[in-house]
Amino acid sequence: MKPFLTDDFLLNTPFAQRLYHEVAAELPIIDYHSHLQQGEIAKRKTFRNLAELWLGGDHYKWRLMRSAGVPEELITGSGSDEAKFHAFCRVLPQAIGNPIHHWSHLELRRLFGIDTTINATNAAPIWEQANARLASMDTWSLLEQANVEVACTTDAPADDLLLHAEIAASGLRTRVLPAYRPDRAMRANQADFAQYLVTLAAAADVPIDSFASLMAALAARVAYFHDRGARISDHAIDIPLSVESIAPAQCEALFAKRIGGALLSEAELGAYQRGLLEALGRVYAAHQWAMCLHIGAQRNNNTRRVQQLGPDTGYDSISDMPCSASIAALLDALDADDQLPKTMLFCLNPAMNEVLSTLIGSFQDGSVAGKMQFGPAWWFNDHKDGNLQQLRTLASHGVLGSFVGMVTDSRSFASYPRHDYFRRLLCRQLGQWVQDGEYPADFEALSQIVRGISYENAKRYFAL
Amino acid sequence: MKPFLTDDFLLNTPFAQRLYHEVAAELPIIDYHSHLQQGEIAKRKTFRNLAELWLGGDHYKWRLMRSAGVPEELITGSGSDEAKFHAFCRVLPQAIGNPIHHWSHLELRRLFGIDTTINATNAAPIWEQANARLASMDTWSLLEQANVEVACTTDAPADDLLLHAEIAASGLRTRVLPAYRPDRAMRANQADFAQYLVTLAAAADVPIDSFASLMAALAARVAYFHDRGARISDHAIDIPLSVESIAPAQCEALFAKRIGGALLSEAELGAYQRGLLEALGRVYAAHQWAMCLHIGAQRNNNTRRVQQLGPDTGYDSISDMPCSASIAALLDALDADDQLPKTMLFCLNPAMNEVLSTLIGSFQDGSVAGKMQFGPAWWFNDHKDGNLQQLRTLASHGVLGSFVGMVTDSRSFASYPRHDYFRRLLCRQLGQWVQDGEYPADFEALSQIVRGISYENAKRYFAL
Amino acid sequence: MKPFLTDDFLLNTPFAQRLYHEVAAELPIIDYHSHLQQGEIAKRKTFRNLAELWLGGDHYKWRLMRSAGVPEELITGSGSDEAKFHAFCRVLPQAIGNPIHHWSHLELRRLFGIDTTINATNAAPIWEQANARLASMDTWSLLEQANVEVACTTDAPADDLLLHAEIAASGLRTRVLPAYRPDRAMRANQADFAQYLVTLAAAADVPIDSFASLMAALAARVAYFHDRGARISDHAIDIPLSVESIAPAQCEALFAKRIGGALLSEAELGAYQRGLLEALGRVYAAHQWAMCLHIGAQRNNNTRRVQQLGPDTGYDSISDMPCSASIAALLDALDADDQLPKTMLFCLNPAMNEVLSTLIGSFQDGSVAGKMQFGPAWWFNDHKDGNLQQLRTLASHGVLGSFVGMVTDSRSFASYPRHDYFRRLLCRQLGQWVQDGEYPADFEALSQIVRGISYENAKRYFAL
Repeated sequence: MKPFLTDDFLLNTPFAQRLYHEVAAELPIIDYHSHLQQGEIAKRKTFRNLAELWLGGDHYKWRLMRSAGVPEELITGSGSDEAKFHAFCRVLPQAIGNPIHHWSHLELRRLFGIDTTINATNAAPIWEQANARLASMDTWSLLEQANVEVACTTDAPADDLLLHAEIAASGLRTRVLPAYRPDRAMRANQADFAQYLVTLAAAADVPIDSFASLMAALAARVAYFHDRGARISDHAIDIPLSVESIAPAQCEALFAKRIGGALLSEAELGAYQRGLLEALGRVYAAHQWAMCLHIGAQRNNNTRRVQQLGPDTGYDSISDMPCSASIAALLDALDADDQLPKTMLFCLNPAMNEVLSTLIGSFQDGSVAGKMQFGPAWWFNDHKDGNLQQLRTLASHGVLGSFVGMVTDSRSFASYPRHDYFRRLLCRQLGQWVQDGEYPADFEALSQIVRGISYENAKRYFAL
Repeated sequence: MKPFLTDDFLLNTPFAQRLYHEVAAELPIIDYHSHLQQGEIAKRKTFRNLAELWLGGDHYKWRLMRSAGVPEELITGSGSDEAKFHAFCRVLPQAIGNPIHHWSHLELRRLFGIDTTINATNAAPIWEQANARLASMDTWSLLEQANVEVACTTDAPADDLLLHAEIAASGLRTRVLPAYRPDRAMRANQADFAQYLVTLAAAADVPIDSFASLMAALAARVAYFHDRGARISDHAIDIPLSVESIAPAQCEALFAKRIGGALLSEAELGAYQRGLLEALGRVYAAHQWAMCLHIGAQRNNNTRRVQQLGPDTGYDSISDMPCSASIAALLDALDADDQLPKTMLFCLNPAMNEVLSTLIGSFQDGSVAGKMQFGPAWWFNDHKDGNLQQLRTLASHGVLGSFVGMVTDSRSFASYPRHDYFRRLLCRQLGQWVQDGEYPADFEALSQIVRGISYENAKRYFAL
Repeated sequence: MKPFLTDDFLLNTPFAQRLYHEVAAELPIIDYHSHLQQGEIAKRKTFRNLAELWLGGDHYKWRLMRSAGVPEELITGSGSDEAKFHAFCRVLPQAIGNPIHHWSHLELRRLFGIDTTINATNAAPIWEQANARLASMDTWSLLEQANVEVACTTDAPADDLLLHAEIAASGLRTRVLPAYRPDRAMRANQADFAQYLVTLAAAADVPIDSFASLMAALAARVAYFHDRGARISDHAIDIPLSVESIAPAQCEALFAKRIGGALLSEAELGAYQRGLLEALGRVYAAHQWAMCLHIGAQRNNNTRRVQQLGPDTGYDSISDMPCSASIAALLDALDADDQLPKTMLFCLNPAMNEVLSTLIGSFQDGSVAGKMQFGPAWWFNDHKDGNLQQLRTLASHGVLGSFVGMVTDSRSFASYPRHDYFRRLLCRQLGQWVQDGEYPADFEALSQIVRGISYENAKRYFAL
């Protein structure tokens, strides 16, 4: 029986241990998709205690506490930080098998050197010890201690990126780059869409009164982002895109309808989004960006709570929306005149893993190793089984060695051990194949794969 | 190599063995969803032989025999009991990996103390020995021997529950409680719907001539059931419910259309069912009942055979109907004014496991530990891989320690070893995590989880 | 640590090793679905080098190379055979976990006796040694060396099968039988549909001017194929079939519309295909053929490349199209008057495994062991995890012992080690169950299952 969470955590073969400790462990992190706030980096935010660091904005942990019967008072409510922390520690032992159980212990060890088990009994000493060490830490030390070479934030096209410039000019060793996420341009039915266009027009210095001018404004902002280091765009694909191609005149008509005050039907919105994505794809291709499609979230299920707490507070889930035909049609339209950018399909519904991991194979064109990527086990899939499934699915259908690896997708500066978690699972899987005689015990070949997936592939692929 | 089906069956680590033998094995059973016939309990039914007990109404075994080429004559036909039993024994060795292979051997050992392997050679001695012991057994002894503390039957709102009262007044140590399953009120397109309403109206003493009066009758029966110990309602969700909310006037119009003799379209039926479920949900919330939604069955595929043998004779399968948006919309509508009852989503399509196990997370509110439950591996999923997947999926997305555990979902008084099967798999999974260093070897914490999932959580959650 | 790809490759228990080496290894192969070209058999085609044999038409390998960034020049382009081979060898080590990595090494060992690891360093000696041995090999020796007793090709109804007669009269020990695949009759919207009907009419000597006469022509060709040994039909189910039954008059109207020059809508095409399949099913039943439905491919995603290279060049993927209701409705309609032929559902989307493996259970009727088959892990699923999942899913829901086993589904004469791969996985799974005490260590019972699934069941089921 292995003790809990040793240095060889998740590494169940000698080969896996060697790959991890000799190759993976010390590689820098390229965190190409996160939700870190640039302001918290620019101002070197500090944390008053472990509750603020861990529970301040982490809706993963909030869901866990709600599931165990903790009242909202002790989650997002007016309870004291210490009471919230104790509530979390009481719940965690019941969350056996949950990645938060693993991550929290990894974070405690890596960030604070505390190897105590988290539970009600140990809550008080952990609180005291961690807070003492946290006093000398800030967002910079957290990034640098985690060996983060590049961190991409998630930014709206209208954002001014001034803080990014400030960070770039600072002494922070981590490069913090923007990523371009025009979700509000996609979500034309939102109530504030007209106001959004005003903001975007001002930022781009392009008047927006048509679909074409919307695209001109978005393209101007792509150029602006590109000049400030962005190489990646992110899109939430939450509704079915049109399978049929959408002519420019249709895009204009849909835009005009919406601007005229009417809401689009779901089919119309799917047509509008297909048209917008196709047009944006060409812009990304011209800049040699990677286009990341985040597919399969069902957001804001709980209207009452979202009204109270806002979006991204733990009320999303996985959608079972079919997507294989519509995503294929989008990629095909872009490929038709060789305007398909590097593209990554993030899959939130693991039942779609095989659908998307085979779909990318239809658009690989040899121009770049792994031009089309099957994204990592993300959000709800970022757990032991989810990561191993993602790796094995990709391996079964493609070339695992071309994979660009993991992201935190996190709001938390404490969450970098998720990269460590992923690397351990990667080495575990490779080691298992060697152990079982399914791959030669060729340390050099395997090291190259580990270095590539942990670090080098992302650096090369995203040109960071 | 482990011998077949020893005391440590499925328990592959020392920790799993300890958890099972010291904690799980002797706990009473709360079987909160079964299809036992109250009449067979009330009259202390006996069984003329093992064929009647095992093959009399068990469509799981019928499907297995049909798959192996056994003619219907020896399944539901006029073949002798003994010939049917021999046919079953001939088939079983070919069903390697099937849970019926495991269950049948477990049942033979636990009920009759016979540890022979079931096959053609051993059929005759098993027949003789089991029948000899069966002579002194009846439904009561089967329930009590299995340590069943509570068994919930499945009952229609119009049922009079008189036999339940009789059972409650008897000396049977098992508490037999009704559960409320208004499927016939949901299936408005069935030919006998009008007649059903007459029956229901009589039982409720409420004339039914509108949707509102249908709801009044159903609510009256909820109160009647509640007074007789019911705390659970069951619903089959076999068609897509409307995503859009349905106003009372629409419910009335749909009801009127159907009562007028017209059939509802599938969309109309989905609207009607959405309206009915939403109205019922409020009634359940008022009684603090749990609402169990059984999602994803595709029933009565084989018209010819169902006409010959009736429903529930082995002609159902798993549906690939999408449901994430419509179930979310139903729960959201109830939650909007805080009328969402405790709810359990049973998932028949394992490809939907992650969809539903993350959906429940959007409606946990801290009022009750595990208010929203991801149901156990049920019916077609009740096998080794299915149970382990259900446990791991729930663990990955939620708090496993809040899970209320297993049901037999069975018509058979011999099927209680399925709880034993589940508990072994639960202890196996927990033991594996400890063995692999993924959870501390904290016997007390783990015992609490095992006791909770095997027994205590269901007792608390359903208030039984 | 096991060395790479020994004689016990994939066989991780003593029982698995014994089952494989004593039972499975030497059984002949019944390859009941392949895409071998009859012409290449009839003329005893030889191969100028390993590149022609391995890379000449194998779109599995092409996809792999594209994914790793190999330019099309070195895949299907004008690069030299040797350069293409070297490019393949450079890529393969990065494809850890991919079945092509395993298959290629198995093929090298079995066909050429070369046990070198495939990589850039070893490419030159492998090229030299394999080519030297290949000089004395041809399609006949490849079939006979692999112990192929029966190989079914895939043929269009209008094909004349003259080469099949020639092969049958030759000295080749492998029996090469046609299989009937009327995809072009199904794909009524294709541009050359009218021309196809002319070809078919000529072959059948039946003028086609109506749906009824189309059916008469197809039925005539079934009889023609039957006389030449065909016992199997194959259908690609790539769009949703109508759930509703389609009357003959509707079939005629749809046929007339299409012949009149109009395209059918997707719903109309789904209706037409449902009508055609139902009519064909009756013809198959009359001939006691097996009807194989290949469900869930999304074909020709990449228009530009397919226009350049044609279909079946590596631009397909897995579809997420729902199908449970429509397939059930088709089977039910045929079963209604007892005209359902033996039917095999091939499942390309593994998320549908449980849907289809339970659906077959609704139509088993005891007439033939495993009358309804859940097809093997096919195409994108033919990898280690895919095969084990298929076996475990089938075992969990049905009678594994009735399964008719594996197909190559391949264009390559080198691909027969895929049967070996499958048999190793089968023995691995059975051995694991025995090792874990989940099945008795009854060598005779297990041998019977292995013989059945590897060879005997297919021979019996397809009457070959």
